[in-house]
Amino acid sequence: MRKQLAYFIVILLTFSGSLCFAQTDQEAVKEDFKTAPNAQPGKEYPQVNSEGRIRTQISAPEADTVQLDISAVKYNLTKDENGVWIGESAPQDEGFHYYQLWVDGAAVPDPNSKYYYGAMRWGSGIDIPAHDEDIFALKDVPHGQTREILFPSKSTDIDRRAFVYTPPGYEKDLDKSYPVLYLQHGWGENEFGWPNQGKANLIMDNLIAEGKAKPFIIVMTYGMTNEVKIGGLRNFDIKPFQSVLVDELIPYIEKHFRTLTDQPNCAMAGLSMGGFETKLITLANLDTFSHIGLFSGGSISLDDVNNTPGFKDKVKLVFVSFGGREIDRMRENGYSWGGNPEEATEAIAKEGINAHFYVSPKTAHEWQSWRRSLYEFAQLVFQN
Amino acid sequence: MRKQLAYFIVILLTFSGSLCFAQTDQEAVKEDFKTAPNAQPGKEYPQVNSEGRIRTQISAPEADTVQLDISAVKYNLTKDENGVWIGESAPQDEGFHYYQLWVDGAAVPDPNSKYYYGAMRWGSGIDIPAHDEDIFALKDVPHGQTREILFPSKSTDIDRRAFVYTPPGYEKDLDKSYPVLYLQHGWGENEFGWPNQGKANLIMDNLIAEGKAKPFIIVMTYGMTNEVKIGGLRNFDIKPFQSVLVDELIPYIEKHFRTLTDQPNCAMAGLSMGGFETKLITLANLDTFSHIGLFSGGSISLDDVNNTPGFKDKVKLVFVSFGGREIDRMRENGYSWGGNPEEATEAIAKEGINAHFYVSPKTAHEWQSWRRSLYEFAQLVFQN
Repeated sequence: MRKQLAYFIVILLTFSGSLCFAQTDQEAVKEDFKTAPNAQPGKEYPQVNSEGRIRTQISAPEADTVQLDISAVKYNLTKDENGVWIGESAPQDEGFHYYQLWVDGAAVPDPNSKYYYGAMRWGSGIDIPAHDEDIFALKDVPHGQTREILFPSKSTDIDRRAFVYTPPGYEKDLDKSYPVLYLQHGWGENEFGWPNQGKANLIMDNLIAEGKAKPFIIVMTYGMTNEVKIGGLRNFDIKPFQSVLVDELIPYIEKHFRTLTDQPNCAMAGLSMGGFETKLITLANLDTFSHIGLFSGGSISLDDVNNTPGFKDKVKLVFVSFGGREIDRMRENGYSWGGNPEEATEAIAKEGINAHFYVSPKTAHEWQSWRRSLYEFAQLVFQN
Repeated sequence: MRKQLAYFIVILLTFSGSLCFAQTDQEAVKEDFKTAPNAQPGKEYPQVNSEGRIRTQISAPEADTVQLDISAVKYNLTKDENGVWIGESAPQDEGFHYYQLWVDGAAVPDPNSKYYYGAMRWGSGIDIPAHDEDIFALKDVPHGQTREILFPSKSTDIDRRAFVYTPPGYEKDLDKSYPVLYLQHGWGENEFGWPNQGKANLIMDNLIAEGKAKPFIIVMTYGMTNEVKIGGLRNFDIKPFQSVLVDELIPYIEKHFRTLTDQPNCAMAGLSMGGFETKLITLANLDTFSHIGLFSGGSISLDDVNNTPGFKDKVKLVFVSFGGREIDRMRENGYSWGGNPEEATEAIAKEGINAHFYVSPKTAHEWQSWRRSLYEFAQLVFQN
């Protein structure tokens, strides 16, 4: 178990250092930069061009060195006569990336960007336009609500936060009840991940408006109750989070929302470490959960199926996904960590499990893979 | 009108530069610092001591100067042998303050703090423990929900965000409808102000649990549709925001929430520029609004009452509040801007208006004044 958890952290760290473009093609920078959606209101920077480069700007008149740090590569900015530094990165993959600036050795958020929680800190993030960004665009369609709730947790002795997405129409037909998906973030992230950079609400609003997904409730809470840190994996124990989720949050949601509370209408999914948690918790609680989604978070093998009593009867969906660049890396490494997830998924499908495998084109262990994974998963979940 | 709006910006800027303690008493710093609630998860800094000093820390090995900038005073930090800078401010007023760091001339957020929107940017904030912080403490009481909604706005051609607080119990008794308060932020802030640093949800949860306030819905949206900036005041026009609020948001809320839609059950309040907007919009729409709250945002005079047809019949509450340090400053200036708000409030009370005046002890044009104002206002609104 420890080995599997380490895998997600290793792959996260490996990927964040895997795209080491050298900054050799400065003369070729295409001058069609536009302000990114991640810029703070009224700010011109950060900007992105059609090649996927990010350009940042910061005033630092007395600094000697200012760098833009993205995908584990640092790019030197250059200073103008007013002490304003400017510069850009190499082209980035489409989708969302965390980044930061370095000012004379201090790692700081870009004061021009909006902030997101990831890599164990609130900091800057940038969206490189994706060919399929329409799936999470803000459109003039009926919108659901994203609700911040505080639920009592005896096991951790505090009232804890969760975000709850209720689909459009939830407020209108008060006799209707809905299936529920419990959706987890990854290591170093928190409950803000899916509602903020994950765009879960917009993905769902758009899918529901097009009739591509059933309306359901999504519950997103903090999954690192065990305070997992690098080096602290030896003590990783799923039980504290499982208690919060299964014994405290689920009963609270069922009491305060109009939910379908039977097993066929309860799903769990998660990304990276959240997928690892999903696998552990669902397989140990198949009387509660029927639909399972693992996004860049391992797979379910034939052994898992055979060693889990009732799996074939109770599990209605297994969805396994990865970013294309993750799969490439796993293949290069001979699937030394955790095996080949596509083969594993095919193997259980052959045994009659409703199992699906999805690869997000040309994305790494990052949010664009997971936005797409939710988009795909949401069209499959609660359909049987 | 322009003059009044300028007043709120002037007082904001004046106050942010008014507490210029010199850093002369370093030897007397009390070493009882504790991590502030505004620190990011797992971070040790920023810290606050019992004198109300804030201490920050940042690694910047190659920097020549690092400063902590709070209440318009910059404090030099000192560097240790590892390149880590540390230092503290003079004592601050209790309550919430925005702050930033300067690293060799670059103004940046403190990478250790949580971020808040104010002064036209997402940046660092700190809470100096207040003697009455119990009013917004997270307690084991029934909690309401803070919901992010997206409502269509034809006048601005986009779906706009609002936060909606629904009180505890809203989900249970589906036959019950609630009064609604429209609550505005100040200049340079946005719709995140009241739910984040304003603590509106916790203030209400606690008041309702103690039976001190009626349960009601609070709606918080962005009030700067006119893109007011310093220097742009000449073009200030309440109409764009009034259209969004009165013609678009209110009908949406009435359709999607269980509201009491009659005039006696509709209130508006706001802080600073939001108070200015509240006065303009309520007085022009007395068929919609009955209860009015101005927090550090001017007052309502006898002339206002006499010049507004129907005021005496239709207005059920006028609540006017300021921070004590604001009142001191206004007195020193001979009430040259906008007159004496206490006298104005007394004058309309004598004419039979249900008018209340509140002063937040020893706080300036800052969030602690406004948290307390909401706490007081919430106990008076919808009571008659």
